[in-house]
Amino acid sequence: MSFMLDEIREQPDWVERAVASERTGAAALAAAMVDRDIRFVVIAARGTSDNAATYAKYLFEIVAGMPVALAAPSVCTLYDAQLRWHNTLVMGISQSGEGTDVVQVLSSARAGGALTACITNSADSPITSVSDFTLLCHAGKEKAVAATKTYTTALAVVALLVGHVADSRALLDFLDRTPDAMRAALIADDAMPEAVLRFRYMQECAVLARGVNQATALESALKMTETSYVVAKPYSGADFQHGPIAMVDQGFPCFVYAPDGRAYASMLDLAMRIRDRAGEMVVFASAPEMLGLGVVPIPTPQAPHELVSPLVSIIPGQLFAYHLSKLRGADPDSPRGLTKVTRTR
Amino acid sequence: MSFMLDEIREQPDWVERAVASERTGAAALAAAMVDRDIRFVVIAARGTSDNAATYAKYLFEIVAGMPVALAAPSVCTLYDAQLRWHNTLVMGISQSGEGTDVVQVLSSARAGGALTACITNSADSPITSVSDFTLLCHAGKEKAVAATKTYTTALAVVALLVGHVADSRALLDFLDRTPDAMRAALIADDAMPEAVLRFRYMQECAVLARGVNQATALESALKMTETSYVVAKPYSGADFQHGPIAMVDQGFPCFVYAPDGRAYASMLDLAMRIRDRAGEMVVFASAPEMLGLGVVPIPTPQAPHELVSPLVSIIPGQLFAYHLSKLRGADPDSPRGLTKVTRTR
Repeated sequence: MSFMLDEIREQPDWVERAVASERTGAAALAAAMVDRDIRFVVIAARGTSDNAATYAKYLFEIVAGMPVALAAPSVCTLYDAQLRWHNTLVMGISQSGEGTDVVQVLSSARAGGALTACITNSADSPITSVSDFTLLCHAGKEKAVAATKTYTTALAVVALLVGHVADSRALLDFLDRTPDAMRAALIADDAMPEAVLRFRYMQECAVLARGVNQATALESALKMTETSYVVAKPYSGADFQHGPIAMVDQGFPCFVYAPDGRAYASMLDLAMRIRDRAGEMVVFASAPEMLGLGVVPIPTPQAPHELVSPLVSIIPGQLFAYHLSKLRGADPDSPRGLTKVTRTR
Repeated sequence: MSFMLDEIREQPDWVERAVASERTGAAALAAAMVDRDIRFVVIAARGTSDNAATYAKYLFEIVAGMPVALAAPSVCTLYDAQLRWHNTLVMGISQSGEGTDVVQVLSSARAGGALTACITNSADSPITSVSDFTLLCHAGKEKAVAATKTYTTALAVVALLVGHVADSRALLDFLDRTPDAMRAALIADDAMPEAVLRFRYMQECAVLARGVNQATALESALKMTETSYVVAKPYSGADFQHGPIAMVDQGFPCFVYAPDGRAYASMLDLAMRIRDRAGEMVVFASAPEMLGLGVVPIPTPQAPHELVSPLVSIIPGQLFAYHLSKLRGADPDSPRGLTKVTRTR
């Protein structure tokens, strides 16, 4: 029927497989990071993989205490900059393994003395040849052009790696329990055809989250933009309330991700401010108080812990984008203007 | 008449003053970075200052070869993470110097052994008390709520600092010649009331640039969102063409910043793809070939060099946002929902 819908549904199984398959690889990379005295991480990625990189930034910093920069590939590709890469892990994330600028960043960094690694769904792709360590997503072939299962499996591999780098038994335990929470999140599919109805003619919206779910806001907005051609603008809740909230007036649609955890209280504050401005909210949460603020509440199961909640929260977001695309008569499996491999120079 | 318009016009003078006043301070910080064997830079900022931080990332990496991370303040403020800050400069950018989460990041980093610095328009503000070095914008009091002159002066101070860190006489020379190019850019004001007319009812748009002018796309989009409540979505040209370009169809408005330099060729490619999809472009450029693709061409004077072009290119962008706001009956001096000091927890 639809590759995208099938692939959304398969995610819990692929995540389970990725975690089981890459334990040894993650441990080996973590050990190499100790050997090489790695203190700083730089991640290069584009599109959906760049959203996985945002998740990696939060997780590395919060759990492993290691500052993370997201690479601006053009620094290497357009400006030929030679960076000083001592004590740095440069990691590429690319589902196809063929993103030319990401490969170029890794190649340049490796020549400059960095430890390099990649997270990819394609063994033997170009990115693996410039990586000292390769971690695989094990997500099978992704047939829909809009990425879903390569996103969540990349998040899982990131969590696995950070769990080993920080030697955090707790994070690894949360991760092991995540696929079941993802399965529970799939039941949102039933209510989705009705939930998307009122957004048939939506032209623009804001997508909001904070903390580790910043990645969820970015990825949810990207899925809506790619498959339904909506101008969906992602924001950190913190940034949004100082300026951009100006665009919220009567009926302005805001998508709010607010799972339980450290970011919850500030998202609740923000949601109340949006309600005061008569904005219209789609709320992805498990707390009844938060759900009650949504004109469209999407109950989302609790994740084992906030740190792994992005793997769970994105599922209703993907389902929303899929059903909205169908409703609007678009083809979510092969949206206009989208190609699977990014070959930026 | 309007604080915002006055402040846009004053920018070349303030930039001149900032560069003249902070030479010694920039040299001192650069020397301290050598003493402390600084290899990485982390920048904390919100809103407009975060766009200045994006400029700083490109400049530090391209000219000084030093990897730069943009801080996610919630890592400190929500998750209480203790990062390892050895060999790291942590720099805050805040016009008011009172942004609570930015101050908290610096305070935490300083306690953890980082060298700290700030760029602010407010001497003796809280951020200066947690900074080992303070660089001032010297922009006078900013009366309009939408920031303009504190943005360009912050860019100037960044360029001054990087020029000293990299010991780049060339960059410092370009910077000295920038205020005159900014003055020339102000003449765009005359044509602007007519240029904005057709966008009276625009609801959403994309704002595009690449390389060092990524900051220009971000800041131009933010100004339109803040003062005209348009959903203006900034993109790197490289990211845009792999996915989000799906939203461009007949008449979809795209704002394209394409000054001369390394990023020009790829922006020209992108503009031709947008034209093929019948998107409607506002083009900020000096090259006639590029201007010819715009339904609204905004001729912009050449900057002394691409590396300082963001100080010049943003001026017509600010003027566009100002005149659009007036046309739509909004008050650009005090937009709804916007406050001058950001106090995120």
